[in-house]
Formats: sequence, C-alpha cells, structure tokens
Amino acid sequence: MRSFIIDCDTAEDDVASIFLLAKNNMKIVGVTVVEGNIDFDQEIINALWALEKANVDAPVFPGSRRPIVKDFTTVEEVHGKYGLGEIHATTSRKPSPKHAAQAIIDASKELEGKLEILAISPLTNLAMAYLLDPSLPKRVKKVWVMGGTAFAHGNITPVAEYNFWVDPDAARIVFKAGFNITMVPWDVVTEYTINDQEWNEILNMKTPLSEIYVKMFSHYRKYDKDVQKLDGHPHPDLITTAVAINQDIVEKSKHEFVIIDNSDSLTRGMTLIDHLDSDKPWSSSPNTEIIYRIKKNILLEMIKKMLS
Amino acid sequence: MRSFIIDCDTAEDDVASIFLLAKNNMKIVGVTVVEGNIDFDQEIINALWALEKANVDAPVFPGSRRPIVKDFTTVEEVHGKYGLGEIHATTSRKPSPKHAAQAIIDASKELEGKLEILAISPLTNLAMAYLLDPSLPKRVKKVWVMGGTAFAHGNITPVAEYNFWVDPDAARIVFKAGFNITMVPWDVVTEYTINDQEWNEILNMKTPLSEIYVKMFSHYRKYDKDVQKLDGHPHPDLITTAVAINQDIVEKSKHEFVIIDNSDSLTRGMTLIDHLDSDKPWSSSPNTEIIYRIKKNILLEMIKKMLS
Amino acid sequence: MRSFIIDCDTAEDDVASIFLLAKNNMKIVGVTVVEGNIDFDQEIINALWALEKANVDAPVFPGSRRPIVKDFTTVEEVHGKYGLGEIHATTSRKPSPKHAAQAIIDASKELEGKLEILAISPLTNLAMAYLLDPSLPKRVKKVWVMGGTAFAHGNITPVAEYNFWVDPDAARIVFKAGFNITMVPWDVVTEYTINDQEWNEILNMKTPLSEIYVKMFSHYRKYDKDVQKLDGHPHPDLITTAVAINQDIVEKSKHEFVIIDNSDSLTRGMTLIDHLDSDKPWSSSPNTEIIYRIKKNILLEMIKKMLS
Amino acid sequence: MRSFIIDCDTAEDDVASIFLLAKNNMKIVGVTVVEGNIDFDQEIINALWALEKANVDAPVFPGSRRPIVKDFTTVEEVHGKYGLGEIHATTSRKPSPKHAAQAIIDASKELEGKLEILAISPLTNLAMAYLLDPSLPKRVKKVWVMGGTAFAHGNITPVAEYNFWVDPDAARIVFKAGFNITMVPWDVVTEYTINDQEWNEILNMKTPLSEIYVKMFSHYRKYDKDVQKLDGHPHPDLITTAVAINQDIVEKSKHEFVIIDNSDSLTRGMTLIDHLDSDKPWSSSPNTEIIYRIKKNILLEMIKKMLS
Repeated sequence: MRSFIIDCDTAEDDVASIFLLAKNNMKIVGVTVVEGNIDFDQEIINALWALEKANVDAPVFPGSRRPIVKDFTTVEEVHGKYGLGEIHATTSRKPSPKHAAQAIIDASKELEGKLEILAISPLTNLAMAYLLDPSLPKRVKKVWVMGGTAFAHGNITPVAEYNFWVDPDAARIVFKAGFNITMVPWDVVTEYTINDQEWNEILNMKTPLSEIYVKMFSHYRKYDKDVQKLDGHPHPDLITTAVAINQDIVEKSKHEFVIIDNSDSLTRGMTLIDHLDSDKPWSSSPNTEIIYRIKKNILLEMIKKMLS
Repeated sequence: MRSFIIDCDTAEDDVASIFLLAKNNMKIVGVTVVEGNIDFDQEIINALWALEKANVDAPVFPGSRRPIVKDFTTVEEVHGKYGLGEIHATTSRKPSPKHAAQAIIDASKELEGKLEILAISPLTNLAMAYLLDPSLPKRVKKVWVMGGTAFAHGNITPVAEYNFWVDPDAARIVFKAGFNITMVPWDVVTEYTINDQEWNEILNMKTPLSEIYVKMFSHYRKYDKDVQKLDGHPHPDLITTAVAINQDIVEKSKHEFVIIDNSDSLTRGMTLIDHLDSDKPWSSSPNTEIIYRIKKNILLEMIKKMLS
Repeated sequence: MRSFIIDCDTAEDDVASIFLLAKNNMKIVGVTVVEGNIDFDQEIINALWALEKANVDAPVFPGSRRPIVKDFTTVEEVHGKYGLGEIHATTSRKPSPKHAAQAIIDASKELEGKLEILAISPLTNLAMAYLLDPSLPKRVKKVWVMGGTAFAHGNITPVAEYNFWVDPDAARIVFKAGFNITMVPWDVVTEYTINDQEWNEILNMKTPLSEIYVKMFSHYRKYDKDVQKLDGHPHPDLITTAVAINQDIVEKSKHEFVIIDNSDSLTRGMTLIDHLDSDKPWSSSPNTEIIYRIKKNILLEMIKKMLS
Repeated sequence: MRSFIIDCDTAEDDVASIFLLAKNNMKIVGVTVVEGNIDFDQEIINALWALEKANVDAPVFPGSRRPIVKDFTTVEEVHGKYGLGEIHATTSRKPSPKHAAQAIIDASKELEGKLEILAISPLTNLAMAYLLDPSLPKRVKKVWVMGGTAFAHGNITPVAEYNFWVDPDAARIVFKAGFNITMVPWDVVTEYTINDQEWNEILNMKTPLSEIYVKMFSHYRKYDKDVQKLDGHPHPDLITTAVAINQDIVEKSKHEFVIIDNSDSLTRGMTLIDHLDSDKPWSSSPNTEIIYRIKKNILLEMIKKMLS
C-alpha cells in the first residue's frame, strides 16, 4: 500500500484530492497544512472535515502560516470565503500539535524510501522540513508537485502560478534540494477543464459525493470562466493526484531542469525551464519530470468513479 | 509603395530579409545597424553587401555598438565568424555618417505616417530614437519586431530570446513607447523550420540566390540542429519580414500586453505576456499583436520565389 | 578661461550655481536641461531666466524629459511649484532647437580636452550623449557630479540621493563610461548647511542677488529643516560648483570605485563605493574622486562674494 | 542572573565572546551553531572547546548548515583554516542532537521574557526558530545582533557585512519579526581596532587566556591590516557582547528602521537604514537600536579583565 502525506492549503480541489487518494486505497499518513488559498485555521478545519467525509483516520499537522521570506495574499475570490464554494465546513476533530515540517521529517524516517508527498500548495512546509533536515530528500520516494507553468502562462500574475508565487523562495529551495519531483503545471491543467457537458453529467449523478463536488466547485467554476477565461474549471490538484495514483494518465512528459524565480519583481514565482538541456550558467542537469499532456478520458473516469 | 527601414545586426537571416523585401517591391529607405550577432563593423559590411547583391541603392546607418545599459555577447558560434556561414562579405560601398537613431527620426518626419520599421535585432537603435524624440511613435506606421517568446522557450538562455536578451532595457522602452507593434516570437518560428526535404529542394534550385542561401545558412542550420535540438533551421527574421509583407501568412495572432524583464538576474530579457488581459498591477491594455501561428506553405512559396 | 556646460533640472540651487560660475569668470558654453525637480518646460524657463539675471548670453538646450528606462517623480514639495521658492520665473528668451545630447557632443568637439561638465541633476543627458558617441569621454576634460551618497544616507529614499534615483541607469552608464569624474555626495553636503546665523547674515545683505537668494531658498530651507531634519538648507549644487571652481575648498577626498544600483527594488539609485579597493567580482579600479570634507569658510566666502 | 543563548559560527571572536560572557557571570543557556566562517563541524568543535576552556557546562546545538535560500562562502582566509588562527581545537565533548532552532524555541518557553540571544553570526537559526514558531519574539527579551553596516561600508563585499551577506533572507525575516533588537554594525566596530600598542600590552600579559587570545587573533589581525586596511583587528562579536553585558559602553545609539536587501545582485546583504524616519513606501517605524559610538576605554578594560 502506497503511503502519502498531502501538503495542502485546503480548498475544494485539495479536498477532492483527499477523496481521490482515499477512494484509490492509498494510505494517507497525514495531511500537512500550509499558508495559501484562504484563512489558515479554516484550511485546517477543511482538512479535518475532508478526512472525516472520506472516513480516513489520519492526523492533520498545521505548518507554516506564512511564506519563508515574502508576503502573500489569500484568494478567497477564487475559492469562496471558506475555500469550498457554498460549503462552510466545521468539525469536532482536532489537529495534531506537531509542526508539519517535523511531521514530514518523522514520517520520512518511519517510511524510509516509501513516503510520497502530494505537494498541492505553496511549498513552505516541505522547504522548512528540508532546511531542518537536509538528508530528507534521500528518504522521500517521490514528490508530486502541483505548481508552476510550462509556458509562462500564470494565474495569480499573468506569468506565475499561485503556489510558486506565494512562496517562490520555498519553491527555489525544494527544486534545488534533490527531491524526485514530478511537476504538473497550471497551463497544462487548463487544457483539461470540466466543460459544460461534463459538468452536467456530474450534476445528474446525484450521489452524496457528487453533490458535495457541485457545491464545492460552483464558485471556483464561475471564477475560472469569468477571470481565467476558461471554458470550465480545471483540476490542478486532482490531476496531480491522478498522475500520482495512475501514471497511465500521462500522455507526454519530459525530464528538464527547473528553477523558480524568487525575485521581488514582475517575474516573482515564474517557472524557468531549461527545455534545451543547455550548458547555460544557471542551468543544471534535469531535476524534474514535467507533465505536458494527459489523457482526459482517464481523468474523467477517475472522477466519476470517485463520485459514484 | 510601402517604405521600410530595416534595423538589423546583419547575419544570414537579416540578409535574407533584405532580399525578401527587395524582391517584393518594398522601398528600403535605409538599413540601420545595431550591436548583436557578430562584430559591429562586419555587420555594416554585410548590410552594404546585401543591398549591393539585391541591387538596392539605400544608405546604411551605423547605430549603437552596445546595449543601453547592460553588457552583451556576440554569437559567432550561431552564425559563423562573419555572420554569413561560409561567406566572408566585402564591399566598396561606405556607410552613412549619420547615426541610426537620427536616421530613424529623420525618415519618420519625411515619411510621416508611412514609415514601417522591420526590427529584426536588439532594439537599441529604436529605443535611442524614441529617447531622443518621444513624438516618434505617432509618426511611425508600424514596427514589425522579431523577438521575444510566446511560451518562455528561449535560445540565448533557456527562457529568453537573443534580441530581447541583448538589450532588455531597450525592449522595455520600445514596448512601453506606444509604437504599433507586431511581434514574431522565437518559440513560434521554431515550429516552422526548413526540414531536410525542403532544404534539399533549395539545394537543387541552383540559382545565384539559392547558392548564396545555402552557403549562408549551412553553419546556422548545423547549430540549430545540434544545440537548439530542432529538425532544421528556423527563419526568425525572414518570417517576420514575410508577415510584414503579406499578412495572409498569419494563421493566428492575439493582441496582448507585453513587457520585457530588464533585471540582471536569471529572467533577463524574458517576455512577459498578459494573456489574461488582467487588472494585475504591472499589466496594462494590450500593446502588441503577437503572431502565434503562420501558414508554412505561404512561407515556402515566398522563399522559393525570392531564390528563383 | 575655463569652459563649462551646466546640465541641470533648474531649481534654486541650480540657478545659484549658474550665478556662481558667471561671477567667477567661467565661460558658460551652454545650459542643458534634463528631467528632474519640477515641470520640464519650467526648468527651461528657469535656466533662460538665470542666464538673463547673470547677464550671460548662452544657449539653453532642452534634453531628455524622462529617465532612460524607469519612471520618476518631480519634487515640487522640495523646491516650490516653479522650482525657485517664491519666484515664478518668466522670460522672453527662447531655448535652442538642438537636443542637449547633441549639444554636449558638439561642444566636446569644438572644445576638445577643455570642456568641463557641471552635472548637477539626473545624468540622462550625459548618458545619452555617450550612447550616441562613445568616444565622448576622451574629449571631455572633467565631469563634476552632484549626486549619490558616501554613507548610504539618502533623501528621496532613505538610502538613495535624488539625482541618481531619478535615472539610475544613466548614472550606471556615466560612471562606467570612463569620464574623469569628481562626485560630491548628498550626505557630505548636509554637513555644511546654512545655519540660522549664516541665513540671517545673508538676509541682512540687502543686495539684488541676496534678495533673489532669500526668495529662492526660503521654501527649500523649510523643507530641509522639517523633513530632512537638518539645521538649515544644504547647497548640493552650489558646493559642487564651488569645488569645480576652486579645489582649495576640498579638505578630504578619495579616489574610489563607484557603481550605481539600477534595480527596481529598495536599493534603486544607491551609490555602491568600493572603499576597500578590493578584488571583489563587481569592483574595478577607482573611477571617481569622492569629496568627503570641504572647508565651510571658503564656501561662505564664495557665496557672500557672489551675492554682494 | 541574565540568561543567554549564543548563536555563532565559532571563530576566534565568537570564542572570545563566550569567554567574556562566562567571565561576567552571565548564564550561558546554550550555544547554537550556524553556517558561516568555517567548516560547520569545526565550528561545533570550537564551541565545545570554548565552553570547556571557560569551564562552562552548557549544551551546543548544531543548527542550519546553509543559508535559507542562497549559497554562501566560508572565509577561512580571514580566520585561519580552523577558525582560531594558530589553534586547531579538539574536544571530547559532544553536541546535543536537538536542532538549534528547536533549542531556541524551547529555551524561550523555559525562560519566557528573560532569554537574551547573542546573535553574532548569520541569522539562519533565529529565522528558522521564528518560522517554526511565530510567537517566539514575544518571549525573547532581547536580541543583540552583530551585523550589518551603518554607512554601507562592508567587508565581504564593499557594501555588505558578512553575517547579513551570508543569509540576507534570514536577516530580512529577523528584522521584520518584531524582536527587540540592538545592532552593532561592522563599520562602527572598525573604529575601535586593537592598535599595535594595545596588542603589545596583551602580548605582555602572559596569562593562560591572553596567550590563547594572541594565538587566536594573530591570523585575523594580519588579514584585517592587509585586506581591510585597518590599523589593527576589530572585535565585532566581542563589542556586541560587551554592549550586551554593560550598556555603559555605549556612547551614541539611535532607534531607526532597518531592512536588509535580500536580492541576488550587487546589493545582496546591504543594510538599509531609514535615518529620516520617513514615510517612504518601504520604510516603517523604528525596529532597531543601532550602536553608532562606544567608549573604547571600557572595552579595553573588559578585555583585559577577561584575559587576566
């Protein structure tokens, strides 16, 4: 049984990822929470609520409430005030007192060589874990990162994706640390939006989870159509989770060198990819598998199976 | 008759662009030369030589020998020592004593509202002309720019294209000045390389110009295959010239806001495009027509007609 | 007879510098005007007005109205709306049609090896002249620069002085161009303010020029006391002019390497001095004489003689 | 009895600071070690060795081996290969397994409101402790920082001091975190070097500690005379410790806003001080007491008493 830590800033797509892992018999070792989409304490509640909904008994470890160096902004306008569209989650479950960074280090020792980290949020917790214990990458089997761009088409800025923009210093640290990384970029997932026809199919499923899905994603769907000018909502976190669960979904990927811009200027959070595998001064040997294309049919199957 | 100033750093593709303009009955008002591909004085000789070959009696105006603020490197490894592959051009013609920036200003007054500038090199001359006379943009009908990227896939660095990288400050100035710009990005032209079959067709043409073409592009072709990992050589300048001459060649273009990164860090020279037309702090209303796709058949026809 | 071009953004201290040069039998070849303190057109009028007041028949050449790359702000709050405190200068004289940059180049050819430039404003004009004609530094005898800081105590920002902050790219270019530069820093001139007693002595002179002086400097004096927290107003431009006229005024100076920060971040316009003459990567051999101390008695004598 | 944690990169002046604290009946709660002057493991040994020499039974907590984001260089050329001039320290004592950041957090809870931190090295450990527990500043009574500059006269670069240059991101975090900071800048301590006469007095003391002092500082003294162009060696850490122990030594200090430049350019690690207490965009209310002048006689007394 594969073992995962999900590091998230628990909005609707993070919650869907927790459901997808749970429904595919993956062991959720724990959920570590990091600054990002919405109010930090609500992110913790959402994580506890999601595990409860998925009947998973796993701890939630609060992590960093802010990026390592820079300031950031939450994005309730994207996900709704409580991060789950129309849903305001509450729960009686309590988070663990252990810091997320320490939890990641401890899990990596207990599950040496087996731990997989689903990093579907700003990378502050993972960077802090590495800074506290630089031997961490050797013990972590795989890091599945939702973040960055493949073609410099961003969302929070025209050229940067939100997770990398929130804490570009953390992203710079993580991509230089020697982790075994697969990255699913924003401007790839936007090619696989849930269009109106597919949205209606889900609307008509009328299952407990499909109803939660519709309530969670309605707000996000409207934002993506109006502001991101898409024909539906994309599933950045869910696609990353699907790729982690079932590599058959991957149609095209390339191993390339990635480094994140951590300046304070216009390019903050940009993903710089050496597609030439060149000998340029700031480049190095490939450090990331970048997903460029997936098979949408497999994605839809996995979503429908999850919601059924 | 349309009137052009060609601002170039005269290597093989610049020369081909001069030929293409001449062969399509466009009036070449002058050629302004700027720092870039190779030794500056050889760039001037190549420009004079090209006009001579094309039987065009137009002045060559030497311009800036260096970027406005930063240092740069020439790229003889790409174009051959003298910029024209196997050809070492010489000529008895002499350049004008007038500075390129002043020549552009003067031409814009003589041809008010009609002058078109084919900017197929670093933008230092055009930026200097604008800085000397901020009313310039109102008098220039159109600026056709070969430069930048659409998807952050560069050449001189993995993320920046050479012309914008050489003088990113000039590019920042030109794109903010209010010119009517069409931009042909590097990672679009690399989709339209001259493959082996098309190269062989040209090899077999055996015309004076086709022989010059083969001698000029052999070195460049080898570099693009080996280093840029392309299946042949692209025609960045020639495609920009073709687009300027005949808009039918354009299959897809979008009006978007473009700003060039002029920092000294990894992102130097990157093209930042607001594909979202967003209200982000550093964005503004669209200032550039970006060419995303062209019709290769029309390009090949124009090349063959030019060489025949 | 020594020959000067005064490059200025004509506020009260620029005007005082014109008077000081004129009163010390220095030939004013011309005044070149650049973006800076106040509205550009009023700067031109002030320059013409000052030459008229000083009975000097010299041309005024309008130059750059904006920095080479960056945006900037005028500082009427420091100098009064029209730059001369209570005075709103008007004149019937007209400026020359020649661009300041070209005027500097032409004067450097006519006065090869003799031309001295009093650069008491942002360095855009001088940078443009150099960019148009890189051989300029060899022909210019001396550039007296009012600008920068010796101890990173600025005015427009806590760490940068106004002239270098307005166009840090121009300052970067000028200090790398090979000119023979003496620099008078802001946080040195603030050690030599006109205190209340000295101000009252001038008040009681009751000469035509002393009355102009009081009207011009009253607004500036108030700002420097309130905002800059000084015990009176400093004479950045006038001290630079005094140093140019009479090196006896210099008590301590050092030849050091200077480079100006031209980033867009907090450090924009900072003066970086290699006081260690070190072999650090970004350092080089000394390129500037920096004035660290002057004799205040000589300054006061020169001011009183000028106003008498 | 006042309680201190000494956060250091244990070279000769760090060791002297340990001796000074011990000899002034300050409780050394622990020594936390951070990347900096020399090889990290030797820094740990030096710390254990110093405590042993000073007969202090306190734990040594290894912390971060590298800056949070950037790369850095050790400076054996300044301190000698093993950091203590001619001395190659060895010890049988062992460091604690607890990470320095956690040790700081734990000590701040045990000694709430009483813990003082002597931060005489790069600020990575303190920044990590704060990032792990943002409530830390409220529990820490005082942070005495050796670092930065008052007049932009640096050492590792002409404009930046070593501690802030090594980890400017950590310095940026610490100075924004709300700690109660007193900062002793490099270009202030260089005004109080041990000149030849004072060095000879120490030479002639012939006590166990004075002999250790001479062996430790001989290499450092030579470097400071040759490269830093000083008339003897300064005591950056020891002066900071003396200021912490006895505020009578302070002749002039000011409360000002300080922020550290954490860019990757020439200004990396520069100390930006708002000496104007201005309303500038990047400024804020004073967050640091900066020491500008000390009484050298008190310093010499404290050193001689320590060595006697």
